[in-house]
Amino acid sequence: MIPLDRMLNEVRQRPPLVHNITNYVVMNTTANALLAVGASPVMAHAIEEVREMTGLADALVLNIGTLSASWIRAMLASAAAARKRRIPVVLDPVGAGATRFRTRTALRLLATGTIAIVRANASEILALDGQKARTRGVDAADPAASAHDAAARLARRHGVVVSMTGPEDFVTDGRRAARVANGHPMMGRLTGTGCIASALTAAVAARSDDPWQAAAAALALFGLAGELAARACPGPGTFQFRLLDALARIDPRQLRLRARIRCCALPG
Amino acid sequence: MIPLDRMLNEVRQRPPLVHNITNYVVMNTTANALLAVGASPVMAHAIEEVREMTGLADALVLNIGTLSASWIRAMLASAAAARKRRIPVVLDPVGAGATRFRTRTALRLLATGTIAIVRANASEILALDGQKARTRGVDAADPAASAHDAAARLARRHGVVVSMTGPEDFVTDGRRAARVANGHPMMGRLTGTGCIASALTAAVAARSDDPWQAAAAALALFGLAGELAARACPGPGTFQFRLLDALARIDPRQLRLRARIRCCALPG
Amino acid sequence: MIPLDRMLNEVRQRPPLVHNITNYVVMNTTANALLAVGASPVMAHAIEEVREMTGLADALVLNIGTLSASWIRAMLASAAAARKRRIPVVLDPVGAGATRFRTRTALRLLATGTIAIVRANASEILALDGQKARTRGVDAADPAASAHDAAARLARRHGVVVSMTGPEDFVTDGRRAARVANGHPMMGRLTGTGCIASALTAAVAARSDDPWQAAAAALALFGLAGELAARACPGPGTFQFRLLDALARIDPRQLRLRARIRCCALPG
Repeated sequence: MIPLDRMLNEVRQRPPLVHNITNYVVMNTTANALLAVGASPVMAHAIEEVREMTGLADALVLNIGTLSASWIRAMLASAAAARKRRIPVVLDPVGAGATRFRTRTALRLLATGTIAIVRANASEILALDGQKARTRGVDAADPAASAHDAAARLARRHGVVVSMTGPEDFVTDGRRAARVANGHPMMGRLTGTGCIASALTAAVAARSDDPWQAAAAALALFGLAGELAARACPGPGTFQFRLLDALARIDPRQLRLRARIRCCALPG
Repeated sequence: MIPLDRMLNEVRQRPPLVHNITNYVVMNTTANALLAVGASPVMAHAIEEVREMTGLADALVLNIGTLSASWIRAMLASAAAARKRRIPVVLDPVGAGATRFRTRTALRLLATGTIAIVRANASEILALDGQKARTRGVDAADPAASAHDAAARLARRHGVVVSMTGPEDFVTDGRRAARVANGHPMMGRLTGTGCIASALTAAVAARSDDPWQAAAAALALFGLAGELAARACPGPGTFQFRLLDALARIDPRQLRLRARIRCCALPG
Repeated sequence: MIPLDRMLNEVRQRPPLVHNITNYVVMNTTANALLAVGASPVMAHAIEEVREMTGLADALVLNIGTLSASWIRAMLASAAAARKRRIPVVLDPVGAGATRFRTRTALRLLATGTIAIVRANASEILALDGQKARTRGVDAADPAASAHDAAARLARRHGVVVSMTGPEDFVTDGRRAARVANGHPMMGRLTGTGCIASALTAAVAARSDDPWQAAAAALALFGLAGELAARACPGPGTFQFRLLDALARIDPRQLRLRARIRCCALPG
């Protein structure tokens, strides 16, 4: 069993500093989500300071949502600093598969060997696994199973946890696998929910020894916040602020009782 | 008559992908407004990927609100890619007239011949028309009429639709003209409402053959959302999230019944 | 006595244009806070236009929260333009002390002699005063007193007002000092509240002859907004939008009655 209550308690009692090199669209909401859950966010991307900032941090998020060349250099420098300090690095390969620039950059970051967790959706995972073309063929009969295969392969190939979000989330380190059934469709109507999931994953991983458990716990926590925020919710604007309220209010016991995580067999 | 209900239905049933090269201030709210209305937003500005991203999109927004040299190069590359694919390009010349850099950049983008719709306020239109000085003189007696003149001239000169927002909006392709009376003063108390109007215009234009109709329909839709959000509204913070709720809730029939668009004679 | 009601009235009746060169995280919330209080925000950072934009403005904010080399050049150019026009410049040294790049940049901006007001928290002030190491030693017994000392020294050394926010705010020009007791702990749960305080300070200073009074008035105004927004508030998401509502609704008389500013002796 994943000790969800203890994990959330750890974050609240020893707030981790999470260094985010992330996209412009979600910087504000990411910072607020981290604050709401009890962590401390910092954003910095200048090559002159990223190593030093990562040197203060308890976890690092690399999010390629609005990329440019100078940001990639900063990400590589921060990733190297994170490795030295053995703090967890979460990669969010936003839009991998949409452009070659994004796919290549995500693969390049993966190749550094510094990434602990890849938090992504199915199409991004398929793109990183190089299976995009194939999935349009045979596998299309069962896209979820095909994505699970890709996630497991990617986890083994790069020695990372793959935390794949979707209608049901799937989290694997290539050896263990879990499905997380928390969440609400309204989360897809708001920009940056994937990015928030990645940042929360980093916060939980900062206070845990097991990145696979941390990734699953973070998705259960965020999914539960989505469920609470969606109650009698008139629209995505209301949902947006209630999501922050819920992240701040969920207590460890509630998380343990309402998380819907079940371990499952690995494909392949 | 503009088929407003059909136009909104089209957006909802075949969600257009709208590529935004836009300013930092409004990226989040723009993305959320597009999602709320039923479209799909993507933000990307790196020269390495903008052509490819525009190649996936159904419409392109060029917004010069927080400009720099490298972003202009990206805008020019994206605009060329959009022309090849014959997808509509909406220019939002934020702050044209305030600095020469903005005026020149907006005119340079217009000169590419790729722009379908210019969504702007009256002072920006006057600046692009080169009439700023003159309007301080004679025309000042009737600033609205003067801006209508400038809009019509600009539309004819560049072969674009000019969608000018203000207390009453004015939309012209140089041949036809319409006034849109939806909206609420509270919209001026929120940053980025003009930018959202431009993005919604792109979403509607992506699913329409007539950019003039699309521009008017988008302003009626957004103005109506503003009216609904302003009901018994205690302040601009509440207004901000209700605006997203309203964009998501307006149905095609409601839009048809409550839109206040009337065709009008062109000046000059 | 600081004429709080008159100062707020001035901002509302002659809305100052506040030019912000600020960080990506808070651009949207800063713009909305300025609009809510009755001011006009503009964001621009390109070296090609910053001088001209500052040339139109009534105040300038330099915020180093997400810095890079080209932004520093823009800040220096804008600061020089502001000096020529004798408009107030507010420096927000976000994260000074966290990295040398930030500390150095903040000190470099201070050294230009263009800064009127530094709005910062205690650890940033201590870093700019060069006292970080010492405060870990003896002074740790009374961190507030130590920070007050540093603020007074910094104010005298650079000829600026230091506006230090915290559980109780402390504002000094090196000659006069005031404590501002408005505010609410919830403000620390939201990203960018310090940055908003800096922007509001610039707005009030734009319509005042006394930057020390302006800084104290702005903190009382923002603190009061926080108090109003926190009433029966279920969480930080709700708090975020209510803060904007409150900024828009506070009237000059209410500000005068509920501000908790008291002049105090200067240390040293």
